[in-house]
Amino acid sequence: MKIISFKAIGIIYSQFNQAIGTPIQPTAAATSNGRIVIFDEYSEGLKDLEAFSHIFLIYHFNYLDKGFSPIVKPFLDNKKHGVFATRAPNRPNPIGLSIVKLHSIEKNTLYISDIDIINETPLLDIKPYVPEFDGREDCKIGWLNGNINKLKKAKDDGRFI
Amino acid sequence: MKIISFKAIGIIYSQFNQAIGTPIQPTAAATSNGRIVIFDEYSEGLKDLEAFSHIFLIYHFNYLDKGFSPIVKPFLDNKKHGVFATRAPNRPNPIGLSIVKLHSIEKNTLYISDIDIINETPLLDIKPYVPEFDGREDCKIGWLNGNINKLKKAKDDGRFI
Repeated sequence: MKIISFKAIGIIYSQFNQAIGTPIQPTAAATSNGRIVIFDEYSEGLKDLEAFSHIFLIYHFNYLDKGFSPIVKPFLDNKKHGVFATRAPNRPNPIGLSIVKLHSIEKNTLYISDIDIINETPLLDIKPYVPEFDGREDCKIGWLNGNINKLKKAKDDGRFI
Repeated sequence: MKIISFKAIGIIYSQFNQAIGTPIQPTAAATSNGRIVIFDEYSEGLKDLEAFSHIFLIYHFNYLDKGFSPIVKPFLDNKKHGVFATRAPNRPNPIGLSIVKLHSIEKNTLYISDIDIINETPLLDIKPYVPEFDGREDCKIGWLNGNINKLKKAKDDGRFI
């Protein structure tokens, strides 16, 4: 199978220097502030982004030493599930997805909050979050039913590194 | 800058054999059905996914001949914007993101709808969509204000290929 090659477009900086203790979702990380520095060659692509309040970050879980596990025990359950039924990082392609708040942009630096991302993570893409594109209601959430209430207190405990 | 290498985990099949005429977002593609075939080596990771109604697909825009454009004219506006302020495909890393409905899974085949994806697109990752993680309200949507009403009628016109 063909290799698909990407390059970082910038670096995400946060207060979380290791997996252990990092919030597991942006919605449980409201007090965490950070910034993104976009490399100069891509900064022209930021034009007009500042008028959006929320952005998707697509990034590389580059801190994982363990490889892909098809079955994982996620942070919010004591039972094992298929990795694609979880947001665990040790996926076949270790791609992270977070929706963060965008506060301002100064030149090629984005100031953001609601960060559940480890410091110095390579960023692959930014997309504007648009409720008309990305909001869904009346969803079935599988094993997270009965576990979602653990979200605010749960932190990464290093189980995937 | 280091190359980040990924491999497809499966292939997305849809009724859209070319960019021209393809819906531009899942929320404007409710009648399109399709399927995903996950390669055997990853199919164990699908365990428990069927209990989720909506999934993120992260995929490779592999049909683009044109490279990255920092400034683009998106489908929903006549004005140009920075590519990161749009969902246009010709990004530095041509990564697509769509939230589709998951209807059923039979072995390693997922039956889905609300597809805005070209036939035979390489899939990089699947994540469950969870409103408590991924829903946001009261968002500022920049240049899409005043343009979002065009969504239902807009189709890909091939401008990025």
